[in-house]
Amino acid sequence: MDDNRSLQIGSSGGGAVAILALDIGATKFAAGLVDEAGRVGAVHRVPVPDHDVWEVCGGLLREVAAGAPVTAVGIGSAGPVDVPAGITRALNIPQWRDGFAIVAAVGSLFPHATVRFALDGACLALAEHHSGALRGLRNGLAMTVSSGIGGGILVDGRVSMGRTGNAGHIGHLVVPGWDVPCACGGFGCLEAVASGMSSARWARTQGWTGDTGAELASDARAGDAIAVAALERAGTALGTAIGSAAALLDVDTVVVGGGFAASGELLWAPLRAAAARHSGLGFIRELRVERSGLAEGATLCGAAILAAGLPAVS
Amino acid sequence: MDDNRSLQIGSSGGGAVAILALDIGATKFAAGLVDEAGRVGAVHRVPVPDHDVWEVCGGLLREVAAGAPVTAVGIGSAGPVDVPAGITRALNIPQWRDGFAIVAAVGSLFPHATVRFALDGACLALAEHHSGALRGLRNGLAMTVSSGIGGGILVDGRVSMGRTGNAGHIGHLVVPGWDVPCACGGFGCLEAVASGMSSARWARTQGWTGDTGAELASDARAGDAIAVAALERAGTALGTAIGSAAALLDVDTVVVGGGFAASGELLWAPLRAAAARHSGLGFIRELRVERSGLAEGATLCGAAILAAGLPAVS
Repeated sequence: MDDNRSLQIGSSGGGAVAILALDIGATKFAAGLVDEAGRVGAVHRVPVPDHDVWEVCGGLLREVAAGAPVTAVGIGSAGPVDVPAGITRALNIPQWRDGFAIVAAVGSLFPHATVRFALDGACLALAEHHSGALRGLRNGLAMTVSSGIGGGILVDGRVSMGRTGNAGHIGHLVVPGWDVPCACGGFGCLEAVASGMSSARWARTQGWTGDTGAELASDARAGDAIAVAALERAGTALGTAIGSAAALLDVDTVVVGGGFAASGELLWAPLRAAAARHSGLGFIRELRVERSGLAEGATLCGAAILAAGLPAVS
Repeated sequence: MDDNRSLQIGSSGGGAVAILALDIGATKFAAGLVDEAGRVGAVHRVPVPDHDVWEVCGGLLREVAAGAPVTAVGIGSAGPVDVPAGITRALNIPQWRDGFAIVAAVGSLFPHATVRFALDGACLALAEHHSGALRGLRNGLAMTVSSGIGGGILVDGRVSMGRTGNAGHIGHLVVPGWDVPCACGGFGCLEAVASGMSSARWARTQGWTGDTGAELASDARAGDAIAVAALERAGTALGTAIGSAAALLDVDTVVVGGGFAASGELLWAPLRAAAARHSGLGFIRELRVERSGLAEGATLCGAAILAAGLPAVS
């Protein structure tokens, strides 16, 4: 429940403070109180259930609010989203996949609150811009590589939202070398090749018998040849997509968080090699790809920044 | 010399009007006078020479200015560029490839002028946003597909410049299926696969004996099997890159100009099929890819908008 270290905590404490941040992930909800500087206090988490998804989510928010009058809520959601309509269509939450009116639902719970809503990747970029690797920059890319792959883009001083709030979907850049079907309906998307879940799935087709991306990384470190090949495959796809996106966006700084990105050099060496191979243009020749220092709570931090309505740093 | 029809011409006429637009292409320079609404009068063109490149470029500008006091110049250049430093590094102009201080050179010619400088792709996007397919939109992608492939991106109401002025380099998105070396030093870049020049080069490796992208399109229409395969290859690569970029940027409108894009349905049918195959996410399911209505002078129009300092439409 308490991951203060990951979140640059203030001493919001509770009581009169009644600004909330909510992170809608593929497998869990996280929420916390926000202080006026956009910092999150103690974080409460619950797994996303198979049924009664909103009931569980709303219950979490009520628990965090603890009866205080809530004046603002910031929500970051797994994508896709429809921000103008206030709807999440999180691909990996079956009950919400066809659309759930999250802004209206949260608003009905806290009728006096301003509800702000964005893609989780945009929240990640807000957090990295506010206090992470993109601080002080005007252009950059923030990514999360875990069971899925998402991101957010910092364009000319602002985190881009895009037409419908979905800017930053780097997980659906098509990468060379593989043509596997993706949950989005496309083929060869980065997420379908290089996420922790996709890498584990590929390794199983090669005879590996584990389950998760974390096990895959652990087996690779122990010398399992299939697991090593799976990390190399994922790293190469990630680096190639990063090189492509860097050219299109003219960014020289890319920050990568998420559990599967913690797989170590067996992932990062091929990632860096592929990024270097595909960044020959002068303006991205010094491309830096680094691990996020913000740890697991970064998306929630971004939702907090959204909730607090902090001015964009630029 | 006169392509008024392509440029939404005003009646700048010359004389007191002394705002210039310059388009630095891979094979030719184009320049014209600009009226206060950002429209270009009669366009003068010269081929880019092998030597004395600046002398020829400067001579063209003097000819267009015709002695009038020049107060502003807008320059769009083939990439890469270094906009903060005022330097072009146009990949396809050997004498300038390692850098030419174009802003200082133009400034020395017209010491009382404000010189504004951008990537040609950004100028294209400015023109499409001002009076083309991106008019009234806040997000979109403009591309040119000719001997090279370039572009510009409209992000949340503004044409993005990126960190160094190079945002929009879609020609260096890595596309699946081919791993050919690119002039940028990378491999499998869209430009190395799908430009008119690259398509002609590939067709020659298959036994085709022509020279240019225009001949290739003409031979394809006449039923030459290799030429047909070359257009299908190019269209598939273009559509795949467009689907990828649309997901990353959250745009549903892509406009494509340039000579090779005029190759007809033998290019466009595979392009649309690949774009549809790679736009499964709900927010890009209605992705529209259309031919530019602005014709050849669009980049110059954008340079004119830059020169006139018109406010961004958003």
